Amino acid sequence: MNRLRIGIVGAGRIGNVHAESITYHIPEAEVAMVTDVMVDSARKLAERFGVPKYSSDYMDIIRDPEIDAVLVCSPTPTHADITIAALKAGKHVFCEKPVHTSLEKIREVAKVAEETGKKLQIGFNRRFDHNHKAVQKLVQNGSLGRIELIKITSRDPEPPSPEYAASSGGLYIDMMIHDFDMAMFLAGSDVTEVYAMGTSLVDPRIGEAGDVDTAIVTLVFENGALGVIDNSRRAAYGYDQRVEAFGSLGMAADENDGDSTVKLSTAAGVVGEKPQFFFLERYMASFTEEMKQFIQAIREDKEVPVGIHAGYMSVVLAKAAKKSLDEHRPVKISEII
Amino acid sequence: MNRLRIGIVGAGRIGNVHAESITYHIPEAEVAMVTDVMVDSARKLAERFGVPKYSSDYMDIIRDPEIDAVLVCSPTPTHADITIAALKAGKHVFCEKPVHTSLEKIREVAKVAEETGKKLQIGFNRRFDHNHKAVQKLVQNGSLGRIELIKITSRDPEPPSPEYAASSGGLYIDMMIHDFDMAMFLAGSDVTEVYAMGTSLVDPRIGEAGDVDTAIVTLVFENGALGVIDNSRRAAYGYDQRVEAFGSLGMAADENDGDSTVKLSTAAGVVGEKPQFFFLERYMASFTEEMKQFIQAIREDKEVPVGIHAGYMSVVLAKAAKKSLDEHRPVKISEII
Amino acid sequence: MNRLRIGIVGAGRIGNVHAESITYHIPEAEVAMVTDVMVDSARKLAERFGVPKYSSDYMDIIRDPEIDAVLVCSPTPTHADITIAALKAGKHVFCEKPVHTSLEKIREVAKVAEETGKKLQIGFNRRFDHNHKAVQKLVQNGSLGRIELIKITSRDPEPPSPEYAASSGGLYIDMMIHDFDMAMFLAGSDVTEVYAMGTSLVDPRIGEAGDVDTAIVTLVFENGALGVIDNSRRAAYGYDQRVEAFGSLGMAADENDGDSTVKLSTAAGVVGEKPQFFFLERYMASFTEEMKQFIQAIREDKEVPVGIHAGYMSVVLAKAAKKSLDEHRPVKISEII
Amino acid sequence: MNRLRIGIVGAGRIGNVHAESITYHIPEAEVAMVTDVMVDSARKLAERFGVPKYSSDYMDIIRDPEIDAVLVCSPTPTHADITIAALKAGKHVFCEKPVHTSLEKIREVAKVAEETGKKLQIGFNRRFDHNHKAVQKLVQNGSLGRIELIKITSRDPEPPSPEYAASSGGLYIDMMIHDFDMAMFLAGSDVTEVYAMGTSLVDPRIGEAGDVDTAIVTLVFENGALGVIDNSRRAAYGYDQRVEAFGSLGMAADENDGDSTVKLSTAAGVVGEKPQFFFLERYMASFTEEMKQFIQAIREDKEVPVGIHAGYMSVVLAKAAKKSLDEHRPVKISEII
Repeated sequence: MNRLRIGIVGAGRIGNVHAESITYHIPEAEVAMVTDVMVDSARKLAERFGVPKYSSDYMDIIRDPEIDAVLVCSPTPTHADITIAALKAGKHVFCEKPVHTSLEKIREVAKVAEETGKKLQIGFNRRFDHNHKAVQKLVQNGSLGRIELIKITSRDPEPPSPEYAASSGGLYIDMMIHDFDMAMFLAGSDVTEVYAMGTSLVDPRIGEAGDVDTAIVTLVFENGALGVIDNSRRAAYGYDQRVEAFGSLGMAADENDGDSTVKLSTAAGVVGEKPQFFFLERYMASFTEEMKQFIQAIREDKEVPVGIHAGYMSVVLAKAAKKSLDEHRPVKISEII
Repeated sequence: MNRLRIGIVGAGRIGNVHAESITYHIPEAEVAMVTDVMVDSARKLAERFGVPKYSSDYMDIIRDPEIDAVLVCSPTPTHADITIAALKAGKHVFCEKPVHTSLEKIREVAKVAEETGKKLQIGFNRRFDHNHKAVQKLVQNGSLGRIELIKITSRDPEPPSPEYAASSGGLYIDMMIHDFDMAMFLAGSDVTEVYAMGTSLVDPRIGEAGDVDTAIVTLVFENGALGVIDNSRRAAYGYDQRVEAFGSLGMAADENDGDSTVKLSTAAGVVGEKPQFFFLERYMASFTEEMKQFIQAIREDKEVPVGIHAGYMSVVLAKAAKKSLDEHRPVKISEII
Repeated sequence: MNRLRIGIVGAGRIGNVHAESITYHIPEAEVAMVTDVMVDSARKLAERFGVPKYSSDYMDIIRDPEIDAVLVCSPTPTHADITIAALKAGKHVFCEKPVHTSLEKIREVAKVAEETGKKLQIGFNRRFDHNHKAVQKLVQNGSLGRIELIKITSRDPEPPSPEYAASSGGLYIDMMIHDFDMAMFLAGSDVTEVYAMGTSLVDPRIGEAGDVDTAIVTLVFENGALGVIDNSRRAAYGYDQRVEAFGSLGMAADENDGDSTVKLSTAAGVVGEKPQFFFLERYMASFTEEMKQFIQAIREDKEVPVGIHAGYMSVVLAKAAKKSLDEHRPVKISEII
Repeated sequence: MNRLRIGIVGAGRIGNVHAESITYHIPEAEVAMVTDVMVDSARKLAERFGVPKYSSDYMDIIRDPEIDAVLVCSPTPTHADITIAALKAGKHVFCEKPVHTSLEKIREVAKVAEETGKKLQIGFNRRFDHNHKAVQKLVQNGSLGRIELIKITSRDPEPPSPEYAASSGGLYIDMMIHDFDMAMFLAGSDVTEVYAMGTSLVDPRIGEAGDVDTAIVTLVFENGALGVIDNSRRAAYGYDQRVEAFGSLGMAADENDGDSTVKLSTAAGVVGEKPQFFFLERYMASFTEEMKQFIQAIREDKEVPVGIHAGYMSVVLAKAAKKSLDEHRPVKISEII
């Protein structure tokens, strides 16, 4: 068995996460090259995981005939172009979310993917989480009957800097995009309408920068179900990640993961663990799992588990939510697409 | 110590609940008379709890100089007029919710209450529930810091008949009115805007009757917090009653009560109790507690724990929600009042 | 329907508990007389619950032809003689535990009960607890298959005074007697052998008084199952009352009841309620339930739910445990009986 | 940094577990050779993890001057001799439990370890489990005050074959040995006396083979605390692994890990996940952690976290338990040592 040879574009946090998954957990693949405009980052990743080549230019990966697949882990504005270049060079691509903030550009990516016939997977890692995935399975296998309500709570432990918030494209596309995808994943249905509320309660500077840090968005799904997502940029008790699916036969809901199941009972109360701190702690296994399934889809020529449609619809919903907030009214998806 | 003498107007289910609380749990009061237009119901209640007098005419209570307080447990359309008559006759009044579907009528009730100086308490029993009350205390005592989000789930175990749904005034005033009050109770703040979604997924005949059976309503509170309520007329697993308050310092959330804490672990999984079936099982203690505090407010001449403002605002929110659903847009409370 | 007329001997804490149950929750019965050697206590109970007669002499109850049943709530040494006198006077008897510390005396009580044909119920209220009863039902209905292990944890919130400990007959008969009964109730089987460990870790003065405050007792049941009970006179977090039954098909286990289901999540952790403080809070509903079933057994001439055999075997086990501790070896029940 | 070079003796299940930990999770070490008397097993492990050398003779490891440390994963009877040979050859040793069934032999191992000054760690992996370790930390840091009771439940999902049971040395040394070590780890104290109960309820053939499959053992610790362990060879619901430590200030207890936190609520009840199936699923992370700490102890010349004393005392307790069962009496540790 020949190992699949992977090139990683972008040696930041998520690039390192994927390199770790491949190096330690996926014997069927290996990281063959890493690039980063900050070449020092590329070098460090290469040393850490024994990657033989690194450079500052992602085209070194694109042009390398021995590389089978490319992970696009660079900054968001570059995702689409690198993905297109890689696909055209005959490589399979795993692209981090969001694919792009322009819907037209995402459609172009989709077109190229279709034309080249190469695999293209989008990095919605939460679909692979042991908890959320188990809820989705109960929806899918009919245990809940007809789906009527989807509820998602997603709260970060700590707010980003106001500068980051300002440059991030806003909470809906930067943070809630994961929840938009999760909502459609759980409902097994696209969304037809959104209504967005948002305010700045965590840090007034986020509000001054034109963004929100506390938000509720309601959804109408194509299949008739209703949904609601709440986001906050700060939860004092840690990373709060819970979903709930409710249908004619019942409800499936998950709870946060803690570092242990221990309860300490004293005169002060019965104290359990807080949720695991943030996404690297909480979702590490899901990053490995999405990568395993990407590798597997290539090796066995199967459909990728998260395709470009998910990448497209999540951005559509983020845009609809922003429009809804700005215009203070429910917005139909057909207004956006 | 002389016992407070209570007259109950309406010998239906809730009239019996209050009679039971007073007879068995509140030694400081006694039920002195019960009336019901269906005099047989009044007679049965009287026999069951040893009430000395019963009749078909609520004016017998109003005119009885030995009766100190009146519980208005008759059908909704009669609440306001009986309350006004009782107050004018110098009696304290406990009035079931909703006070009336006309805001003008509720304002009239409020005016009479103020003029007579008699106690007037509204029957929002869930405020006295051991779980929800404990969440509210954590808000009130500052444990959660500044409140940012309020979430309420309220699902009935079984849908009413389509006929009931048609005559009930609709889900928002018949069912969600409790949750509107709970939301303002938990947030410690009135609401300034609502956006209502609703659909009929449980029973199409409810939809045909012009009502909804599955609903999500979002709220903006005066204090800047956001809120969301979800309702369903049917939960296969029982009466689902949960609230969550989230603020700058953390979150307080309650879970459903079951009949026991037992978990059965077998090859099939780890199985715990379903939520207690419906409101009589789940909220019985809260009915007793609201009655105790009503009696106490009279005896000690203290403010009642749930005044007419709560009765008024809950109906305002129900009307705003209906308008929002009909016009498919967020509705400001100022449009209603 | 004539109400059953009850006489209560002993107006202490447990006498008041039963008076409250009967007065407020059991319309089919009424407290007709209460006696206490401290007549002031009898008078207070009578006033509190509207009992028409009280005296200092329990024979006033025994001799009253209008009294149907007697609750023996006096100090332990008097239980047996009062029970015998009441039975011989043709009255049904509810006797608090332990019936007596002399096995011969308990056998005499049993003989008189059999001869008179009157109902005799022993006050093992925990059998009526919503949690423990639910575990027992899962044993009884076969959900657990063949029973293999029974585990009981029972810890008081605060230790008694050393004086009380010295005069109580010791932990095994004063405290663990409830757990011995619970063990046999859960296993559906008597015990054939015990091995007792005990030490004084909570308060050295309890050890100096010849008693233990921390104890583990293992059991062999007639049906072949094994059991273990742990007791402590002090749990910093409150009254810890848990049972576990394990069999060939699985396990049923209960958890403590708290005052609410609320969890508070902050930077300090996820904090839930402590167990309810002590037996009056935790087991109040079970006291009412045992009394209801006693009244019902009389009215419908059915077998009482907890008969004298339970009263006898629990004392046998306490004696065997004490002997085991003293002689530092396992003790067969046949050595005691 | 040079990687530590590891030789693994025994390519069975646990040998593979350690090879996986080292290869994928411990960059500071590498597996340099593996041996197994069934050379095919050694070859397979070598191929699976890219180990450069394998053979059928463990002396190939002992004699290899480039190997720094040896993992003894061969059958129990060979543990001690291989450990001694490796230590004498100047290698650090990680030895699986039990070290040997002869106490004299274990003392010999201890002596050699002391003389050579090489690291010797015993494979009590459960000490490194995220749940049990968190309980132990709460004991160690004083959160529970003075320790009074230790309780351990340990039940396998499925019984071994009667043949295995017959050859295993019996439940106390084959299965409960982990719990003996855990008890002393949690209590922070050795044991001075045991009393063992055991019976055969799961499979009569295990009883016929002279072993037990259902057992309770009570413990007295040197520090005065009491303890109890229950074991069963079969739990229908999966691998049941729970510990509880109780002291003057409170209790710390853990619960089983499931594959997700999801609860499914339907008309049938609220169903959660069963415990993870068996030790490979449940304790995988602890195997990696013990290996990390072994490597770290060598590299930083620190004390190993689980030394030969733990290996010795666990066997002492197993022998005392067997003697207690055979002689049906409590047995002092001083009778064994």
